[in-house]
Amino acid sequence: MSLDAVLARIDSDLPAATDRLLELLRIQSISTDPAYKAECDKAADWLVADLQSLGVSAEKRATPGHPMVVGHVDGPGPHVLFYGHYDVQPVDPLNLWDRDPFDPAIEETPKGKVIRGRGSSDDKGQLMTFIEACRAWKAEHGALPCKITFFLEGEEESGSPSLVPFMKENAEELKAEIALICDTGLFQSKTPAIMTMLRGLLGEELTITGPDKDLHSGMYGGIAMNPARVLTKILGGLFDENGVIQVPELYEGVPELSDELKAQWEGLGFDAKGFLGDVGLSVPAGENSVTPLEMIWARPTAEINGIWSGYTGDGFKTVLPSEAHAKISFRLVGTQDPQAIRKNFRAWVEAQLPADCKIAWTDHSCSPASQMSTEHPGFEAARKALSDEWPDPAAYAGCGGSIPIAGYFKTILDMDAMLVGWGKDDDQIHSPNEKYDLESYHKGIRSWARILDAMSA
Amino acid sequence: MSLDAVLARIDSDLPAATDRLLELLRIQSISTDPAYKAECDKAADWLVADLQSLGVSAEKRATPGHPMVVGHVDGPGPHVLFYGHYDVQPVDPLNLWDRDPFDPAIEETPKGKVIRGRGSSDDKGQLMTFIEACRAWKAEHGALPCKITFFLEGEEESGSPSLVPFMKENAEELKAEIALICDTGLFQSKTPAIMTMLRGLLGEELTITGPDKDLHSGMYGGIAMNPARVLTKILGGLFDENGVIQVPELYEGVPELSDELKAQWEGLGFDAKGFLGDVGLSVPAGENSVTPLEMIWARPTAEINGIWSGYTGDGFKTVLPSEAHAKISFRLVGTQDPQAIRKNFRAWVEAQLPADCKIAWTDHSCSPASQMSTEHPGFEAARKALSDEWPDPAAYAGCGGSIPIAGYFKTILDMDAMLVGWGKDDDQIHSPNEKYDLESYHKGIRSWARILDAMSA
Repeated sequence: MSLDAVLARIDSDLPAATDRLLELLRIQSISTDPAYKAECDKAADWLVADLQSLGVSAEKRATPGHPMVVGHVDGPGPHVLFYGHYDVQPVDPLNLWDRDPFDPAIEETPKGKVIRGRGSSDDKGQLMTFIEACRAWKAEHGALPCKITFFLEGEEESGSPSLVPFMKENAEELKAEIALICDTGLFQSKTPAIMTMLRGLLGEELTITGPDKDLHSGMYGGIAMNPARVLTKILGGLFDENGVIQVPELYEGVPELSDELKAQWEGLGFDAKGFLGDVGLSVPAGENSVTPLEMIWARPTAEINGIWSGYTGDGFKTVLPSEAHAKISFRLVGTQDPQAIRKNFRAWVEAQLPADCKIAWTDHSCSPASQMSTEHPGFEAARKALSDEWPDPAAYAGCGGSIPIAGYFKTILDMDAMLVGWGKDDDQIHSPNEKYDLESYHKGIRSWARILDAMSA
Repeated sequence: MSLDAVLARIDSDLPAATDRLLELLRIQSISTDPAYKAECDKAADWLVADLQSLGVSAEKRATPGHPMVVGHVDGPGPHVLFYGHYDVQPVDPLNLWDRDPFDPAIEETPKGKVIRGRGSSDDKGQLMTFIEACRAWKAEHGALPCKITFFLEGEEESGSPSLVPFMKENAEELKAEIALICDTGLFQSKTPAIMTMLRGLLGEELTITGPDKDLHSGMYGGIAMNPARVLTKILGGLFDENGVIQVPELYEGVPELSDELKAQWEGLGFDAKGFLGDVGLSVPAGENSVTPLEMIWARPTAEINGIWSGYTGDGFKTVLPSEAHAKISFRLVGTQDPQAIRKNFRAWVEAQLPADCKIAWTDHSCSPASQMSTEHPGFEAARKALSDEWPDPAAYAGCGGSIPIAGYFKTILDMDAMLVGWGKDDDQIHSPNEKYDLESYHKGIRSWARILDAMSA
């Protein structure tokens, strides 16, 4: 049976498939830092060459930022689009890595073999599971089971500034029946999940300026307004004692969950204690009126992602700083309007500024949450296929992360998007020592072969 | 008349004296950063050689930190000790300097000639005014007017960790009738001032740890406690709406000013508007129940000198940080007890920590405020001498800064200390583009010659 032959080849080809992933992981494609522009370009070239080796008419397409990789290949079955991203997060703090983030390797761990390195899980390892499934299918059958458009981005970790314009300019070329996105994980590291709720993301950066230069706290301490004092005062009021965000109108558009969905989520038996215990915590920090699973899937958040002011080196400096900075992001749900929240947040901050302080803002990500439709028959086909590969039956789930493109496929190309992925909670994506289980990679490739087979049947 | 000859020589020797200062300013003696240890040593060697050229039996004396420079020279008059420090503050942010901080030069400005470079005012330029006065006196008379002990420190900008032990071990050698300290400024940049009130300094550094690693805010946002949120919440409550510091018992030992002193200070006509205007501010930020001059001379302060957490680079990173850090200092007055305030501050912070957060502390400076006696006849002699050199009559004044050694001379060596100096409010000490007016340097040297003459009469 054709699928079995493909699965067998995937098993025997795993070492070679892993070597190919390690090669891609060595490319330092950090999209948010301009210093790595050439490396992002190099990753795109690598993928173009690899897709061409599968008979895909792939090419690098320029954008004002990092290039897109777009490729097409014909086939008998339905027309699907596959999306993944080849860019990765910055690697600091570098001193917390146990190895060079861009010198990846297979490591033996108590939980089994892992592929260690930046991007191994987010998202190079994941996107390669789909490409390797195609490679094995092609090798067995000389052709792919369906018509596929490959669409690989290099700006996902920096807010995808070029994505929407590119999708609009190339709408006809990119249109397919359904989009397949591989940038998510297994529920509780074991249950295959098709994500149907994704949080949106609003990123803000602010600089508060007090005195026009750094001052000596002996001469000016007490009489001069300290911008770090102003910043901590304002951000210190971001939450009330119940964990409720204090920005006016922020909760407008946050949906009440249906009793049915609540019941289904209860049924998943989310282990909040274990989930927090994995990172050295024990107490859910969100609104104390909701369940832990709602905190990460169905509620908005406000997080300080970075804050800095004054002297941060060794020793001590009695300086009264001129500037204080912060990077803050909000995860959004339901129909929350990112633009309205940006406006309300800025007004809320500025209303608290003392007369002597100025403020400057920098825009970062701005995308609404998405709710997926599961009407396309591909969803049920995929859910069955996934249930065949993994011990647990596959589930429809929510996702705390933000994958704006899922929403764009609907709004711009009128396509449903199916989000599946093989990441685990302890992959440490965006953190030091990121890894991807060899099991995720292996079973991920097998899963895609099964999904392509099921959808083409 | 002997003084006139010395003053004339000081005038004619000014260019050479300035070149000598520039030489000392080129040495990068940043004491707080271990990377500059050798440069601190080099500055000490330079001063030893310079003092020896004046016939002073000077030598470099080892400490667990940076060396002391100690020298003795005999003379007819009273026995005075001169104190200054050869170490300087760090230079960051380097991009805000208009020239290399350690490539000093004379610059023409609308307000006249200035010596630009790190340490020009704090404190290399100031200590050299005394040495140059001695040089001129020696050149005119072949000997100095009084017996002088030189005591130059290299750790003043990093909390003087070796100072007290060294003073105790060498008490007999260091004892004199009165200590002369040149590390302060002119009141409102024009009135010669003998500082009689100095604030103390308590430096604290803290690290709050939440999750045991940096996390992805998509996966953990909302449910995991963010240490930057905890830090801003706690520091945001450091002051109430009237500018009163909220640490329990902090105001114990803060003296009520006598009506007489209040009246004298009123008489100084402090220009708060101009003082704040010089640095782009307009509203006094201290307790709104006290006058601006009291805020900087007679009230305690709490300042955030540094704060950092999470991602602070270009672009954006949706990280939920594992750690948040802050450096905080308190200026102390009257009989406030730094040890008690350290204890109360730490308890106040720790009482607000959520269950999931840990905290670690680092001690920095810890010195009480000082109140000088002016009984020694040298004080009145110096006040008259200063009134002869400068347009305004000299005044007894307070000082917002902390010069712990002034108190140590009293407590350890039972000597009164006289603090005079020629710095101006716009010298930008501890900041980019530090400068020292050529007028401060020139008239400072002349002032010391007058003081030595008056005290020896």
